[in-house]
Amino acid sequence: MSPDAVRLVEVGPRDGLQNEARVVPWPARVALIDALSQAGLPVIEAGAFVAPRWVPQMADSAAVLAAIHRRAGVRYPVLVPNLKGLKAATSGGVDDIAVFAAASETFSKKNINCSIAESLERLAEVAARAKDRGIAVRGYVSCVLGCPYEGAVAIDRVVEVAAALAAMGCHEISLGDTIGVGTPRRAREMVQAVAGAVPVQRLAAHFHDTYGQALANILAVLEIGVTTFDCSVAGLGGCPYAPGASGNVATEDVVYMLDGMGIASGVDLEKLRLAGLALCQTLGRPPASRAARALAARKGRGG
Amino acid sequence: MSPDAVRLVEVGPRDGLQNEARVVPWPARVALIDALSQAGLPVIEAGAFVAPRWVPQMADSAAVLAAIHRRAGVRYPVLVPNLKGLKAATSGGVDDIAVFAAASETFSKKNINCSIAESLERLAEVAARAKDRGIAVRGYVSCVLGCPYEGAVAIDRVVEVAAALAAMGCHEISLGDTIGVGTPRRAREMVQAVAGAVPVQRLAAHFHDTYGQALANILAVLEIGVTTFDCSVAGLGGCPYAPGASGNVATEDVVYMLDGMGIASGVDLEKLRLAGLALCQTLGRPPASRAARALAARKGRGG
Repeated sequence: MSPDAVRLVEVGPRDGLQNEARVVPWPARVALIDALSQAGLPVIEAGAFVAPRWVPQMADSAAVLAAIHRRAGVRYPVLVPNLKGLKAATSGGVDDIAVFAAASETFSKKNINCSIAESLERLAEVAARAKDRGIAVRGYVSCVLGCPYEGAVAIDRVVEVAAALAAMGCHEISLGDTIGVGTPRRAREMVQAVAGAVPVQRLAAHFHDTYGQALANILAVLEIGVTTFDCSVAGLGGCPYAPGASGNVATEDVVYMLDGMGIASGVDLEKLRLAGLALCQTLGRPPASRAARALAARKGRGG
Repeated sequence: MSPDAVRLVEVGPRDGLQNEARVVPWPARVALIDALSQAGLPVIEAGAFVAPRWVPQMADSAAVLAAIHRRAGVRYPVLVPNLKGLKAATSGGVDDIAVFAAASETFSKKNINCSIAESLERLAEVAARAKDRGIAVRGYVSCVLGCPYEGAVAIDRVVEVAAALAAMGCHEISLGDTIGVGTPRRAREMVQAVAGAVPVQRLAAHFHDTYGQALANILAVLEIGVTTFDCSVAGLGGCPYAPGASGNVATEDVVYMLDGMGIASGVDLEKLRLAGLALCQTLGRPPASRAARALAARKGRGG
């Protein structure tokens, strides 16, 4: 029951790097994004227009966007939290943005400093303005399978928030297991519930590999019709040496699985691996991708 | 279509430790095995009766078997390569053994120093003698999804070897993706083919996490009726810092998934985690289990 092809949304240069302790100089971010587009990724989250005071990792996103070599057909969305961010993004010529809301009230308050309802109101305004300017909007829902503060999150709440984002015009809703606590049965139940409100073709699954469950969760929802998956080259966002780092699922691990299953992603695994390796050299640590490490070892043996 | 309960076969004290570079003193192996039985594992591979010259990690297996506190209902199989090993095992009072064959001719020659046919002949004799003494025999097939020398392995060959092991009286056949190259679709096809020759109730799946695919593969075959899974506490057998280390899937990651899916294994995840942690302190490295590392980090934050 698996599809013939899926679409991968590479979030390493934004969601990944934003959660790395070390700030990567912006030219290295440009090099990473260009290497990823050369590797065949069709969508690459390229930056965020947020206050550098809060997120120094995403400073200079305008410079990054101006310097990348845009490959035909590739989309380069940027994260935008509010109208101010939208304005900054549009003056940089961005034509693809992403907005984010949480499915947990406490997470919303701690992370975005407002209630879910307030955030949705704010985002509706951002989405409306973006639409006026012909900018496509992607919506993220975080904490869809658990919250670091509240624990379990009600699936109904996830459905509500996803539906609200769809209603305000988000062309795609990415369902994020922000802290990586989800397991396959629950992931499937959650996606099935959301698919009752938003067509499954418009849903993306965004898993973190905190507890090692990401690939199993991807398989679980792949088999019920999800064909868009967020992933992060080299597992950026979680250091393999930091205990409990909650990195995104590594793009290499996902592509390895898809290749083995005969599911087309358009991504060249070797080019992808090298893109991640170059960035990891900048970070001074090995990739948090088992496939990348195993492939490197195989190369090392001349295999 | 998942079962309500599964049976986990803990192979860390044998398959895991045998593939660690560092030799663990035998009293630490005893402590590990006892901690694992206390954590609820129903089957614990406890040692191997092989030449210490070749496998120093498994030296003193007789001492280990004599020293463990046998918990009622728990089975403690040991690996036995030949009649000499069987003799040594039986004089130590072992009543559960495991034998191994390969599905790849080249792997068999390089690893066991004889052809597949020769190894099956030899094992049939071991199995017959074991049966005479009322000893249960488990059979391993290695390289079921790929061989480090030959690459792809024909599924028909896996079926033949599994059927031969079943015919000689192995009560259970463990299908091993020795180098961890398998992906879910292929894993399912292989198990389905073998299940045509040996009832699926007698099959166990044995995945390595080399390319990060193990949990997805487990999910894939869990959904087609496999209910016995081999796993290794703390991912023993693969060091998280060694590039390309091909460790067994970590028992903690498997139990985390099963717990989340409401599938009973009888294993207490916290006790299991502590069992692995103690052994890892002996090895001087963190566990190669994402779930174990994430749980430790959560504890560290007082969560």
